[in-house]
This record gives sequence, structure tokens and C-alpha cells, in this order.
Amino acid sequence: MKKNFYSDNVSGASPEVLRAIVDSNADDTAPYGNDPYTQRLERRMAELFETEVDVYPVGTGTVANGLCATLLSAPYGGIYCADLSHLHVSECGGAEFWSGGNARSVPVPTVDGKIPVATLVETIEAGALRAADVPGRAVSLTQATEAGTAYTVREVRELAATARAKNLLVHMDGARFANAVARLGCTPAELTWKAGVDLLSFGATKNGALCAEAVVFFNRALAETMRYRRRRAGQLFSKMRFLSAQLLVILENDLWLRNARHANAMAARVRQGLADIPGIRFSYQTEINFVLTALPKPVWDGLVAEGYSFSRRGAPRDGVVRIACTWDTPIEAVEALIEAAHRHAGLAPVGAAAGRRG
Amino acid sequence: MKKNFYSDNVSGASPEVLRAIVDSNADDTAPYGNDPYTQRLERRMAELFETEVDVYPVGTGTVANGLCATLLSAPYGGIYCADLSHLHVSECGGAEFWSGGNARSVPVPTVDGKIPVATLVETIEAGALRAADVPGRAVSLTQATEAGTAYTVREVRELAATARAKNLLVHMDGARFANAVARLGCTPAELTWKAGVDLLSFGATKNGALCAEAVVFFNRALAETMRYRRRRAGQLFSKMRFLSAQLLVILENDLWLRNARHANAMAARVRQGLADIPGIRFSYQTEINFVLTALPKPVWDGLVAEGYSFSRRGAPRDGVVRIACTWDTPIEAVEALIEAAHRHAGLAPVGAAAGRRG
Amino acid sequence: MKKNFYSDNVSGASPEVLRAIVDSNADDTAPYGNDPYTQRLERRMAELFETEVDVYPVGTGTVANGLCATLLSAPYGGIYCADLSHLHVSECGGAEFWSGGNARSVPVPTVDGKIPVATLVETIEAGALRAADVPGRAVSLTQATEAGTAYTVREVRELAATARAKNLLVHMDGARFANAVARLGCTPAELTWKAGVDLLSFGATKNGALCAEAVVFFNRALAETMRYRRRRAGQLFSKMRFLSAQLLVILENDLWLRNARHANAMAARVRQGLADIPGIRFSYQTEINFVLTALPKPVWDGLVAEGYSFSRRGAPRDGVVRIACTWDTPIEAVEALIEAAHRHAGLAPVGAAAGRRG
Amino acid sequence: MKKNFYSDNVSGASPEVLRAIVDSNADDTAPYGNDPYTQRLERRMAELFETEVDVYPVGTGTVANGLCATLLSAPYGGIYCADLSHLHVSECGGAEFWSGGNARSVPVPTVDGKIPVATLVETIEAGALRAADVPGRAVSLTQATEAGTAYTVREVRELAATARAKNLLVHMDGARFANAVARLGCTPAELTWKAGVDLLSFGATKNGALCAEAVVFFNRALAETMRYRRRRAGQLFSKMRFLSAQLLVILENDLWLRNARHANAMAARVRQGLADIPGIRFSYQTEINFVLTALPKPVWDGLVAEGYSFSRRGAPRDGVVRIACTWDTPIEAVEALIEAAHRHAGLAPVGAAAGRRG
Repeated sequence: MKKNFYSDNVSGASPEVLRAIVDSNADDTAPYGNDPYTQRLERRMAELFETEVDVYPVGTGTVANGLCATLLSAPYGGIYCADLSHLHVSECGGAEFWSGGNARSVPVPTVDGKIPVATLVETIEAGALRAADVPGRAVSLTQATEAGTAYTVREVRELAATARAKNLLVHMDGARFANAVARLGCTPAELTWKAGVDLLSFGATKNGALCAEAVVFFNRALAETMRYRRRRAGQLFSKMRFLSAQLLVILENDLWLRNARHANAMAARVRQGLADIPGIRFSYQTEINFVLTALPKPVWDGLVAEGYSFSRRGAPRDGVVRIACTWDTPIEAVEALIEAAHRHAGLAPVGAAAGRRG
Repeated sequence: MKKNFYSDNVSGASPEVLRAIVDSNADDTAPYGNDPYTQRLERRMAELFETEVDVYPVGTGTVANGLCATLLSAPYGGIYCADLSHLHVSECGGAEFWSGGNARSVPVPTVDGKIPVATLVETIEAGALRAADVPGRAVSLTQATEAGTAYTVREVRELAATARAKNLLVHMDGARFANAVARLGCTPAELTWKAGVDLLSFGATKNGALCAEAVVFFNRALAETMRYRRRRAGQLFSKMRFLSAQLLVILENDLWLRNARHANAMAARVRQGLADIPGIRFSYQTEINFVLTALPKPVWDGLVAEGYSFSRRGAPRDGVVRIACTWDTPIEAVEALIEAAHRHAGLAPVGAAAGRRG
Repeated sequence: MKKNFYSDNVSGASPEVLRAIVDSNADDTAPYGNDPYTQRLERRMAELFETEVDVYPVGTGTVANGLCATLLSAPYGGIYCADLSHLHVSECGGAEFWSGGNARSVPVPTVDGKIPVATLVETIEAGALRAADVPGRAVSLTQATEAGTAYTVREVRELAATARAKNLLVHMDGARFANAVARLGCTPAELTWKAGVDLLSFGATKNGALCAEAVVFFNRALAETMRYRRRRAGQLFSKMRFLSAQLLVILENDLWLRNARHANAMAARVRQGLADIPGIRFSYQTEINFVLTALPKPVWDGLVAEGYSFSRRGAPRDGVVRIACTWDTPIEAVEALIEAAHRHAGLAPVGAAAGRRG
Repeated sequence: MKKNFYSDNVSGASPEVLRAIVDSNADDTAPYGNDPYTQRLERRMAELFETEVDVYPVGTGTVANGLCATLLSAPYGGIYCADLSHLHVSECGGAEFWSGGNARSVPVPTVDGKIPVATLVETIEAGALRAADVPGRAVSLTQATEAGTAYTVREVRELAATARAKNLLVHMDGARFANAVARLGCTPAELTWKAGVDLLSFGATKNGALCAEAVVFFNRALAETMRYRRRRAGQLFSKMRFLSAQLLVILENDLWLRNARHANAMAARVRQGLADIPGIRFSYQTEINFVLTALPKPVWDGLVAEGYSFSRRGAPRDGVVRIACTWDTPIEAVEALIEAAHRHAGLAPVGAAAGRRG
């Protein structure tokens, strides 16, 4: 029984993804993206987003963010992003690296993991007064957020309008874009270019791919130098078809949404199931596929002793852990986790009725 | 019947590699390289090279070269490399990018695709006189070369000794390292650290992997900042096991050498089969898995009309093409190519006797 | 009468400096630093610091800091510096630029403008835990600080020892090094290499030079690539003698200390003279040549109306201004300022007795 | 008697320049370029060039070129420049540094030190075919050239038109712009923006300034980020007035042209005076202020023994030296050099008649 809730990346790839890789292996094909899979992917993405787009498959979300940060801030400038954002805290100075020192990620304080419009305005205006600072060029929104929340379409629209009014471009870090769309029930178009997003890091790895993400350009003028930059960054995979085939199958028959909906539902059930444990605290709403929570010490100790695995978030003294569910987290594993937590909290076992698949 | 001789990358992955990916998918595992496959890989590489090494799987050869170039030239300096080398001509200014403008690839004229010792000495000494130039820090050797030749162990040893005497570090770009080892019949150790190599880009993608290369540190002090650099470069793959599993299986039962030997043999047969075509010219010895040749125009035209595909090398007016064989090029496809070339050259068909597997 | 207290840079150059420039203009001399002035400067600096040093004159303090930041953090890493430091807030992302994205200035909270040892330890240790952050490589101390205070020799020693224990190098941003030495009454050696400083940005422009600063290497191994970096950064001035001549004369007959002492004394008198104005607040101790103070509104308004000029510090709502004195601020101008402030505060004129030169 | 013909930088500053520095020192003034000198300079440059320009004084020509290279190639690209150009061979990898690895100087073969139009077209077109290369963004013309020649207005116009037709911007490295204008007798406008130049490195240091150059933007859109870049690069001199005052006085009463005309005339006389020495070879036309020549060995040896100083150009075996004249080279020193050369060549002394000032 699965006890590893450490990350969305502890799971392997969806069976459909593996099958697609094996199928795409059958014949010789042109290398470096001149293959039918990559061509089909661009068309498929255009359908998905209901507009013409340029699509570049890349190997990881960090690469996608790094290239986006550089393109958006070029020739030189700052990117306003959430203080919790992957771009700012998890990429070892990525914006600076990818741009050769010409970009800088500028953290903006968040509420519920999201950048409030008023805070964004204030940050931009304060920055504009500082002649000795890096000039602002773009805003990056993490959708869904590192806090487990999702910006509503309306929030994205307001933030993007704010950015645009200040002459800034808009990036969306969509490592968990599928989870956000699944949560919000909107169309991909509504959440991106229709709301004012120029450039998207489209994630698939956390959502059932083996290793495949894509940079999707709604603002196609931004793609001008991408052809060269991709190669220089080692992202012109020689056997590109394998990345494209993964992305294609993820989008086929809404696999991406089915996977995301399942992961979201499992997290919702975790949240619901743990809610009545005395002393438990939840840091944020649980809107996507993970729960940030401070477990009472006996619960934490008991679960760890049983072999459960979670990742810590924030300062050690806060004791906050992330319980991450994925596209293949079984409901039985979630129920077993809830049951174990109750047991370690000294509570009676949870009734079978709670075991509904979310 | 295969007619695509454009690149070693037109082939897919070896069946063993696909099987290994599927097998490694079975269970949850720790992400970001803390998985048993990655741990086993480091041990396996140590056995292979008969010494302790640090191993970092990465996504592409360009990434491997970029990271190596930066590590070797840090904090600031030039990397002497063959004028034909991938690092210098095929990575869109990669050394400069990966180092943030602190490295520069410095081309050295080659003979038979290889840097002669005397030329290296001359280049280094001339550079040392130029106070206004980037100071030299390292030498990069492409093994096997872009010309289809391989440095002998002795040549590597002499070049590395020359570099060391000038206080330079030594990199080996081994995108086709397997083809070189297969050709030379030496051990991997003899061709690398025993000969004075500090750092190796170990290639697997061209040799039957789906997408997997590795940076192998013999000089482990050079790995000091690699942990951070890898993450920053988007090479800390979340589902790292899939890269490591590919590399592991490639090394299992000498699959890497079997694949390379087959590809080399197919190229040798192409060379032998075309040799008697009047007017044909070969640019270099054929020591590994491809042939660089200037085909007579009617032969070229005829082959292209039949659907054959090759890549051009050098200036268009020279008419040189690369005929690349791979781990899965069937001997029948090679014979058919030879037969077609003869036909277009107006020669009688090649006798069946020529069809021996090299 | 001088009313411009905006900055130490509103003054021109000391007459001695101008004379030295004119004198050094008399003859032809070798360009690019191969001149007798530059050679003499290195010897003079060695005497001043009582140890062998490498000295590189540069054009501005920002250049000195940028080059130092890059050298110290190479090949890749973070530089811990005061949250108020010029390096972090006044150089438009300088550490990132000079290093090509390989360095990052990491702000440390200050008390009285200074980094406390405990805070430094905490910051370094927290950083070491963050695998996804830029690894720490150096500490930069601003001496004297942007708050108008100076680290004692003991404080520098403790901070440097802390850095060293954590394997970090130590930089001193000495744009106002002279003011600090004048204040502390120590030797330049005691305040730098004897206390554990590796590299110094030695300032002269704020202290009577026209435009001349120097990078002084106590840790001479750090200078290895400086020769190339200086040229690349456009700091190998063709007529270098003019920079060196300025630095030489500044050091001659202790002009640098006399200038600094005067500026410090003028600021001390400003502080003393304003202290009895009701409602006035001082942000910090006044240990060098400027006073940070929040003036009551009528005083501020009245002074501005009379044509006085100061620079604002911090957020506009705090109303803090910097009153900067320089090597040539006349005591009469200081007394006039004090008198005017009293007048606008509705106080009786200050008695003549207060007009003692500090 | 002057025997140092090593460089245009062996001379000091014109007396007018020193006087201007002393004069501008009289009063306090706003720092960081908010002074009347800098404001007047922008107006003066607009008059000189007969169009609105943005002007940024900087410390050296290497800085000017570095900033220009970065602005022109942003966000990413190559700059075609003469194989002899300062940007390519004398700045230690400057384009790469200033741009954080996003620019690269691409050498173009020259004839008479100048890039022929046909060669430029060929280079650009070959580059456009190389998908794995850095994409071209700009052309940099050195005016006057490192060979001692000057592009005619017509040549600049044709090269700029060629660049523009290929969608490239045009830089002029005018470290010796004055010498070129003095030679050609055209207006500064005709040689720059009227001919299609976007951005100019305007040199003054080699022409009588102490240390002052300027970046002049004809294409003012390119200046968008310059304000920040200048500060970041340490070029926002705190006492900017001293740079501006130098540039102003250089332009006053045509001092810049008088200085350049004198230096050019001295070089013309050197050329004429040496021409009849048997075995002497001149590498190029002498159109500006220096002569590139291979002296017969006895002449070289004799002059060096007498204490003459020249710089070597090119490979040591070619024995080419540069004899550089400056704004203050006395005609007597030129005649003495000619006389000495004749003497060492075993010729009779030159007649007094040759001693006319050119």
C-alpha cells in the first residue's frame, strides 16, 4: 500500500504514456523535432487553447521557467513572482542563470499563496521609484500555487490587466496547470491568453508524463529567438518525438484532466478525513492535489514510524508538511492514511462511509 | 526498408531500454535522483571505469557539454576544441551561455578531425601571448570525432599531457564514446582518466537510449558546485529514475558496446561497398559509425529521388554528405543502399558475396 | 554659502588632486598602467597596509564592488551583505551582471547598519539547508556603513572569523574606508587583512579624488584572473597614470585621513547642533561624515525653501534625510545650516559658542 | 625629444582639457550626471550631429563598445565586426561579458582593414544558414580602422544599407572618429546617422582627453535600458561633470578636429619621410594618425637602441610595428625619427625641405 506522499513526482508515468512511447519507437523518424509527433503536438495545442500557438517541448519545468523568464525579461529586467514561487526559491538562481545575469526574480508577498492585485501594484510602483534597481519587465503567476490554491479566472485577468497597464508581460508557471483547470472548470483558453497571459510553462510530468513539459507561446513575437535559445540550452532533444508523444497522449481523450481530477479528489479526501483530528492546522485551502498541514506531533511521529513519507514546507519549527496526491494515488491508500492518522491521534477508526472516491 | 541515413538519432530506443523504462515504472520511488536506479548507476559507472567517479545523468549531449565547459573554464577562460567540434559549431554559443559569458570555445585546426599535439601547443602558446584575449583553461577532445575518426589512446594521452603541462584541464566529449571504445578495443579507463581526462560527457542517446547522457567526473573536485548547477540548469529531473534506468541497461551485458560495434560495422560496410564507385571521394577514414563522402552527382540525385536521406556536411559546394548508421541499421538496408548507389553510378549490381556482416 | 548637503559627491576634487593630475600630465608615459605612477601606487599601498598587496585602480566604486563580488563568488555563489548595502540596493543587480548570473547578493538584516554576528551565522546556516538556493561563498562588509556607523576592529574580526569558519571569503566595501579609519583611529592593516579581510574596495572619490578607486587584494590568489577581467570590464584605462596619480596624492601626507577627519567632524557638529530641536529623530549614531535624521516638517520645509538640498533615505513616509558633509564642507556652512534649522523650529539662534570646529 | 610612438595614449591630456577640469571643480554641483556640464553636453552633441541624440559619457572605449555590443545584440545574437577590430581581439571576450553570454563578436575578413560589402553579405548569408549558430543582430564598423584606414562616407552608407536589408543594426566604434572625420572632410552627421549608423562609440581619450568617451544614440529607442545598464556597469560616475567637461571642451572651437588633424598630419609626414628607405614595407594606406610598417631590421634595431618605442602588430615574424602620432606629437620629433631611420638605413640625412608641417 502506497505510503509515499512526498511529492507528485514519486509516481511513475501513466500506462498510456508508456504505451505512446513504445508506439512512437516503431519507425525511424527525423530527429530534432522534425517528426510527425512534434508537428501534431503544435496543432493539438492550438485546438486545446483555441488559438494559434508556438509550442516547444522541453525536459523539465525548471527549464521551461528559465527560458520563459529570460524571454520575458529580455533584454534586461525583473520578474515579479510569488515569494513562494518555484522560480524564486527552487531554481538556485535560475532567472539569473538563464539570462546571463540580465534577469532577476523579484518576490512579491502572497496571501493564500497568491499575489494580491494591490500588492502587485504597490511592488511595481515602489520598484519604478528605485533608479538603482533592476527595471520590472514581467509578472509570473504560479497556477496552481505552491500553497495548494488556484487563482480564479477573474484573479488572473485582473493581475494580467494590472501588469499590462504597467507595460509588463505575463507568464504563467503551469507545472500544475492541469490541476488548476480541473479545479476551476474553465477552459484552458479562459485561464491563459483570454485572461492576458503571454507565455505558459505547461506541465505534464507531475501529471502522468515520464518527463515532458512545454513552453506555449500565445504572444508569438516572444518566440523570435526561441529556436536558437532552445538549442543552446540543450533542449533540442535529438529524439524529440518521445517528448512530443508523451504530451500528445496526455492531451488525448482528456487524460490530463482525468489525471488531475483524480489527484485533486484524493487531496480533498485527505483534507476532509484529517479535519477532525484535534489540534491539526491547515495552512491554506486545499484546492488542488496536495494538503499543507501541521500535524499534531504524535500523529506525525506515528505516521513516520509506520513508513509514511511527506515533505516539509517552510521553517522546521512550524512543522508543516505537504501531503501530495497524484494521478495514481489509490483511494485505499488515502483511507489507510486517514485511518492511521486517527489512530495516532487516539481517535476511533473512521467509518467506512467516508471511503467514497472524491 | 530503411532509407534514412540522416543521423544516428533517426532510430528510436533499443528494446532493452524501453523495457527498462517500463520496469522502473512499477513502483513509487523517491524523486530527484534519490532513487535506487540512480544510486546503482553511480556504482556501475565506477566499475566500468575502474575508479571512483561522480555521475550526473542529464537530458542531452549539449547540456553535458555546456555544464562541462563551464566547470572546466571556471572562473573564466577559454576551452580549446576542434574546429569541427559540436561544442564550437553546433550549440549556438553554448560555452558562452552556460558560463554567463565567462567561457569561450576556441577552435583549433584539425587534421583528420583530430587536434594534432603540435597545433595544440602552438595555439596555447599564441593565446598566452595575447593579453587581451580570454585566458586558456581547458582542452576539449571529441571522441570519436565529428569526422568519423577516433583518437588513439596514445593520442589522447599525449594531448592530455600537453594540456596538463600548460596547466589546462581536459574534457572528453563522448557523445560517441561507445563507438570509439568499440573501435579501439581499449578499456573505458584507458581512454579516459588513465590517459589524463578530467571530465567526460558520456553519450547514450545516439547509441540506443531514448534520452540519456551522463556527466562523469574523474576529477571529483570539479564536481563541487555541480549539485547546484544541475538544478539551476533544469537537469535535476524529478523522475530521474527514468534517465538512470536507461543508462543502467545500456551498460548491462555490454549492450552499449554491442550497439556501437554494430553501427561501426555497418558504416565500414557502406564505405567498402561504395569505394569502387568512380569519382567518389571520402573525406576521412571511416573509424566509427558514419561515412563522410562526396558522392558523384548522378549517384546523389538518384539516391535522393529514391527517398534516401543524408545530412550535408560543410559548405554546400563541396557536396559532402554524412551516411550515418546506427545500432539498428539492418545489413539489408546497407546492401540496398550500396546496390542503389552502384545502379545510379551505372555499375553492375554488387555481388551477393559482398553482403557479409562486418 | 554651501547649501548642498545632498551627497559626498557634490564636492569636486581636492586642490592637491588637481595639481597631481596636472603634474602627471607633463610627459609622455607608457599607457595601460605601465607607468611610474601606477608602479609607485602599488608600493605605497603595500606600505600603507604593511603587507604585500595587488592593487588595481578602477573608475568607480560600483566597478570595484562588481569585480570583487565576481572574484569572491566565483565560480558560482552568493555574497552575504547588509540589507542596506550599495552592492545589494544601489547597483541595479550588479553582482548578477558582473558574474554573468553566477553570483547573487544575499541581504542580511542589520542593526545600526551593521550585520550582527549571530544574524550572519543564522543566515549562513539557513542558506546551507536550502539545496535549491545559490550556495554561499563570501561576506561583504560595508565600512563605514550606509547608516553612518562603523564596524569596530573587533566586530570586523568576529565577522571575518565567522565567515572563515563557514568557508566563506571576506570583502570590505570601503567607499568610505577613510572615514572609518579616521573614526576608529586604528591602522588600515588592523581594519583589513589583520582582521581577516581578503579583498577591499578602496574608495577615494568621495574623499577628494576626481574619479579613482582601487581594488586591493590582500588574498593575492584571488587576483589570478583580474588582469583579464579588468580589461574586459573596460577598466584598463589607457591613461591609467591619471587614476594612479590621484590615489598617490590622496595617500601622501595623510591627505586621505585629513579629508576624512574634516568631513566626520562636520557631521558630528551637524548632529550636535540639531540635537536640541524638539521632535527631531536620529536614525543611528553619527560616526562618520553624514547624519541620518527625520526633521520636523516645518524645519524641512523651511530649509528646502531656503535652497538646502539633502537626499531622502528609505520610504518617503519616514521623512528621513541624509545630511552629508565632505572634505571641503566649511564650518560656516554647517553653522548656517544649524542656525537656519533652529530658526525654522522657532528656536532662538544658536550661540556663537557652538561654532567650534568639531 | 619625444621618442615614444607606442600608442596614441602615451600623451597626456590637452591643456584645454585640464583647464576645463579645473574650472568645473570650482563649485558644488549635483552628482551622477544631474549637473549643468552633462546637460550642456547633450545639447552640444545634438548640434554637432545635427539631430537629437541621447548621450552617455563613459570611462573608456572598451566600456563604450561593450555596452553598445550588448544593446545592439539584445536579446541574443552575433555582431559582425572586422577581424582586426578592438571589439573582437582586444577586449578579452567583451561582447560575451557585457551581455552575460548573449552576444558574440563574429569576425569578418577585411581588405585594407575594412569590411568589404560583398564579404559582409556572404558572412551574413552563411550565418543565416547555420541553425546551430548565434543569430546575427548587428554590424560594427571601426572608424577609423585598426589598419590606419578610414571608410568613406559612401562605404559606410553601403555597409549600413546592407546591414539594414538583412535586418541588422549598425554600430560605429569611433575610438578614432575624430581622425576619420578630419581625414574625410565630411560632417559628423554624414558619417553616422545619415549613412545609417544607429549607435556610436565616440572617442576622446586618444584625442586629447584625460579619460572620456561617450555612447551616442542616433537610434534613441536603443537607449531604453541604458539608464540602468550604465549604473550597473559602474559608469554612472558620481562626479560626472568631470567627464562631461572634458567632452565639452574637446568639442569647443573644434579642438577635437584640430587635434586629430595634427595627429593625422604627423603620421602622413612619418610615412612620407620613411618611404624612400630601401626594403621598407607599408601594410596599408596611412589615412589617419599612425603608420603600420615593417622596418628593415637594422633600422628597427637602431631605433630601439636609441630609445624609440613602437607597438608590434600581428604575428612577431612579420615584424610589423605601429608608429602612432598624437595630438601633441611635435614635428621636430617626427623629423628626428625620420632622420634616425635614414641614418640606421645607411642613407644621407633628409633635407630640411621635407620638414614642412603636413
